[in-house]
Amino acid sequence: MAVTDLKSLYLHTLKDIYYAEKQVLKALPKMAKKADSPRLRSNFEEHLAQTKTQVQRLEQVFELLGERARGKKCVAIEGIIEEAKEQMDEIDDANTRDAAMIAAAQAVEHYEITRYGTLVSWGKLLGMPEASKILEKTLKEEWDTDAKLTKLAEGRLNKEAA
Amino acid sequence: MAVTDLKSLYLHTLKDIYYAEKQVLKALPKMAKKADSPRLRSNFEEHLAQTKTQVQRLEQVFELLGERARGKKCVAIEGIIEEAKEQMDEIDDANTRDAAMIAAAQAVEHYEITRYGTLVSWGKLLGMPEASKILEKTLKEEWDTDAKLTKLAEGRLNKEAA
Repeated sequence: MAVTDLKSLYLHTLKDIYYAEKQVLKALPKMAKKADSPRLRSNFEEHLAQTKTQVQRLEQVFELLGERARGKKCVAIEGIIEEAKEQMDEIDDANTRDAAMIAAAQAVEHYEITRYGTLVSWGKLLGMPEASKILEKTLKEEWDTDAKLTKLAEGRLNKEAA
Repeated sequence: MAVTDLKSLYLHTLKDIYYAEKQVLKALPKMAKKADSPRLRSNFEEHLAQTKTQVQRLEQVFELLGERARGKKCVAIEGIIEEAKEQMDEIDDANTRDAAMIAAAQAVEHYEITRYGTLVSWGKLLGMPEASKILEKTLKEEWDTDAKLTKLAEGRLNKEAA
């Protein structure tokens, strides 16, 4: 699909984040399983439930645009998740592994934050306030998840890893 | 290098962001050249100068650790920059291209924000307050750059692209 104007760029970015969320849906159960800290495990499980809703919201936006919901391979998210998987498998020390998984999850959150932030701004400029309102809910959730992970990282978990 | 504890995980992440900053150093001049908006061009040029200082700060932290400054291939940043390059080459409309470059630059900023945020927390836990102080300066700059890009995105540029 050629990008010729802001509307086609919007659709392109929507497909990118749709693909990214689907990858996150696949990765989170594995991360939850590997988490040593019960609080970290709950965080991943909670975020998994949230991600399912976020995928549905993206599907609503595709519908608003009259487009079929479809992903577009996103190398950035694949890189982040691939590294997380490697570390999950290779780090033997449970607390260090938890610290690495928190860092990976925060990299995912920030990738999503930047993409949703962009879509919310563009949606407003394109006269699609409803789409922006839907995605603003997700954007807020991603910020909240990131803040919770920071708290976990700075609290007990990392102290034990050190 | 095997990651066995938080200190080796810290070094691993330091190498990741060092590699990422070097990629950004290469990409920014091309992005500045392609920017249609003079304000966007200035933003990229200013951030290029800043990035050079940020690379030096990372080298200071390697020195504090008694390690040689060395990068480690980071697929996430490569993915973000690769997509930026594709869009820079393929989008003919100047305002849409500027909007795409702003979004790509923000994705870079958020990747850096998450990595520096992690390193600052871990540095404190590892008893390296000096390293955290150095990297906190960079973290602040990345947040500022992101805020400036949001302002550009929500202002004139995107309106013209729409």
